[in-house]
Amino acid sequence: MMLYTSRIGYTFSEDTTTRFSTFNCLQNEVNKEEYCVVTIKDAQRAAVLASKAARLFKNTEVSVRVDFLNGIADELELKRSELTNMYCKESSLSVQRANSELDRTIFQLRNYGHYLLYEHWNRPLVSEPEQVPFKIETRLQAIGPVAVFGSSNFPFAYSTAGGDTASALAAGCPVIVKAHPMHAGTSWLVAECIIKVAQEHQLPDGVFSHLLDNGHDIGEELVGNEYIKAVGFTGSIRGGRALMDLSAKRDAPIPVFAEMGSINPVVFFQSELEKNLELWIDKFTGSISNDAGQFCTKPGLLFVNQSTEGMQFVAELKQQLSVTEPKCHLHPNLFKNYKEQVEESFEWIKCKQPYHSQPVLREVSAREYLNDYNFYEEFFGPQAIVVLYKSREELMEMLHKLGGQLTTTFIGSEEEFRTHEEIIDCAKEKAGRIIFNGVPTGVTVCDAMVHGGTYPAASDSRFTAVGTQSIYRFLRPVALQMIR
Amino acid sequence: MMLYTSRIGYTFSEDTTTRFSTFNCLQNEVNKEEYCVVTIKDAQRAAVLASKAARLFKNTEVSVRVDFLNGIADELELKRSELTNMYCKESSLSVQRANSELDRTIFQLRNYGHYLLYEHWNRPLVSEPEQVPFKIETRLQAIGPVAVFGSSNFPFAYSTAGGDTASALAAGCPVIVKAHPMHAGTSWLVAECIIKVAQEHQLPDGVFSHLLDNGHDIGEELVGNEYIKAVGFTGSIRGGRALMDLSAKRDAPIPVFAEMGSINPVVFFQSELEKNLELWIDKFTGSISNDAGQFCTKPGLLFVNQSTEGMQFVAELKQQLSVTEPKCHLHPNLFKNYKEQVEESFEWIKCKQPYHSQPVLREVSAREYLNDYNFYEEFFGPQAIVVLYKSREELMEMLHKLGGQLTTTFIGSEEEFRTHEEIIDCAKEKAGRIIFNGVPTGVTVCDAMVHGGTYPAASDSRFTAVGTQSIYRFLRPVALQMIR
Repeated sequence: MMLYTSRIGYTFSEDTTTRFSTFNCLQNEVNKEEYCVVTIKDAQRAAVLASKAARLFKNTEVSVRVDFLNGIADELELKRSELTNMYCKESSLSVQRANSELDRTIFQLRNYGHYLLYEHWNRPLVSEPEQVPFKIETRLQAIGPVAVFGSSNFPFAYSTAGGDTASALAAGCPVIVKAHPMHAGTSWLVAECIIKVAQEHQLPDGVFSHLLDNGHDIGEELVGNEYIKAVGFTGSIRGGRALMDLSAKRDAPIPVFAEMGSINPVVFFQSELEKNLELWIDKFTGSISNDAGQFCTKPGLLFVNQSTEGMQFVAELKQQLSVTEPKCHLHPNLFKNYKEQVEESFEWIKCKQPYHSQPVLREVSAREYLNDYNFYEEFFGPQAIVVLYKSREELMEMLHKLGGQLTTTFIGSEEEFRTHEEIIDCAKEKAGRIIFNGVPTGVTVCDAMVHGGTYPAASDSRFTAVGTQSIYRFLRPVALQMIR
Repeated sequence: MMLYTSRIGYTFSEDTTTRFSTFNCLQNEVNKEEYCVVTIKDAQRAAVLASKAARLFKNTEVSVRVDFLNGIADELELKRSELTNMYCKESSLSVQRANSELDRTIFQLRNYGHYLLYEHWNRPLVSEPEQVPFKIETRLQAIGPVAVFGSSNFPFAYSTAGGDTASALAAGCPVIVKAHPMHAGTSWLVAECIIKVAQEHQLPDGVFSHLLDNGHDIGEELVGNEYIKAVGFTGSIRGGRALMDLSAKRDAPIPVFAEMGSINPVVFFQSELEKNLELWIDKFTGSISNDAGQFCTKPGLLFVNQSTEGMQFVAELKQQLSVTEPKCHLHPNLFKNYKEQVEESFEWIKCKQPYHSQPVLREVSAREYLNDYNFYEEFFGPQAIVVLYKSREELMEMLHKLGGQLTTTFIGSEEEFRTHEEIIDCAKEKAGRIIFNGVPTGVTVCDAMVHGGTYPAASDSRFTAVGTQSIYRFLRPVALQMIR
């Protein structure tokens, strides 16, 4: 049996005292590999090493970083079958999903590289003010070592070589990944790919480290460590807020970009229910139930116009979800959390297979909705809540009570969007992305993507976690003033 | 005797229970005007009003905001003599300084307006990814009401209608100013100009409020208030950190941009001491002593090469500062704080006139410097510390121990800058602006300016407090996704 240990830059950590394993929900068994919890001392060594590497890495030519990112993409492609095998047994997600997520991860890495070749990505701002005898030239510079906390639900795309790592490396920041314990093996394999490419490209030792831990100590050490200069996190509100609070207590607080929870409200106006009822039932059945609804952009709350068509939509969507096959959760803990949260407000539907849950639409009245704070929290599973609204005022009242969102969706006609401009404007105050006539799941990697929003969707609404603009989380301007 | 009260949008607050006055250090007397402390309830009303105004103001045409900013500039110009009179008796600064600072404030307002007319300031990012049937269009949107805390040392340029207010209004955010108590009268007069123009331009009530307080309660209320979405602050590390900590404790933390302390190190290499000794003595005498050294970019720490010329430079600069006229501080409290801080490490030079202090250069050895943490703090007065360095290693050790800086300055030849690239690179990791052969005081308002730096120079090194780019502190991207 192999023991997997952490990477402190190019060397393996040696301590094997405390170990943990991952779990296969589909097989209902503990995976055989054992992962060794890294020591605090080794985590500190990784931070010091990253700090030294940062000095060299931030000044590398853009082409060096582009080659590095492309090299990682190539290596992941090469290891595809090994990676997807491990991915499936740690996440209980399908082979198809594993492959498409790996495709996306590879695309992201290449995409950041491509963006660095775009001449405007860090074009200097130059000023030669008339009233003074000097010129000022400002460029963006890497902020320093970034600690990355991967997500539970995207073992490839938002984890070890995911968006945070790719954008930080693109910016010129060394990365220390705290592996997500639920998919430590996938993380370890991906980390080995990154390390291999970094060594081949002769990048400074410490440009990447990978730390294994199934508790909170290592994460706390990283966020509090003086050499760490920024944090990227994808996960729960509780987890993200804990990291924000840790940073706030530092001698010198650092930017924490946490992408956290969102219930992703959807507002159905009348016309599309009249015109395309079946289409939207199909689309939302998929969007709510796919991969057990374990997506940060899963539509968790539907506001439907109380009309004949609205009620028909609710009845049919409910029916369709109820006959959708039960879905397997990523991990027993996530299953347990979801079940407990559901049981606070609803009856739990028991499934035959362990760790599975039945896709379901829960109907609550506007009054119940407004009075129960449980409904303002994300349900991380294949469930949506539907509220039939009677008037524009009732809809507005409910929208106003919502917190920050990653997305808000409107289904209707151009005319309805114009008529309800005020409602859409209210949504823009909270969400990072407003979707017209689409489903919120599926976050396309492109320049204009905003995957963020006001708190608690994200810790800082001024940045995005997805798309090329996410590299600006890890860059700061430095002005050079010289005599002209 | 007139009682001055706060502005809750367009109405005056009515409570006059608790009052305070400002102080004229030059005359050593309390100014006769009385300012009424606003109630918490009125501060809360201002926040609610700002929140309502935000909905309308963020969607105004750019031209509306440009006209508003230019209107304020015009109004300040119109009230110049009244404003500068009040400014002088509250700050003990000269009429000349009052006028030049007002010029700068007026220029800043117009400059932000001008920037909004630049087509690229908020050009939408548009993506039409091949693999999906929709397009995404992203624009920046105002973040919401901003609480502005003005500085003690720039009653015009970094206070009521200063950089934070101008950039927030330009972005489309309503502003609530917590007036600096040391220049409450100046602040009140400037606020009246803003209110007058806002009313003339029929902007929504609440787009600007002005709150008077000589304690911390109102500031704490604002930073904790749910309707406030960002904070702009200029002042001490203690003050800025307190606001950062308050925000971190909110249910939904908000961005706090605090521009705080900096000791602005200056490194003198050999060549310029050989070539232009007198020039640099003159320049640094002015930069250290002007307006009692009460500038956030005052050079507080000089590293001078231990050579014949270096020692001559130190001796002559010391001599020249010692015969420079004593300078009056802005306020008795600032004088007292400065005096107490100086007395911890040095002998205090008593002046005849109250609240005055003698410009002075203090020499300490590298060893003393490295051992005394008092030297890593800003001295907010007409003093600089000089350390003669013997080697590059000693210089590096001292630079490494420094915290974040607004500026770091290098005086030398192009060749020396190349030879000492590593030293300059170390400075770039900490400072927002690197100056070559100039003095750090004098922060030019232009596109490329960076007035910020790593903590504690600023709370977030990714933004600047001065120059047009400072409006991006108060904007967040919102993506619209629609079928194409």
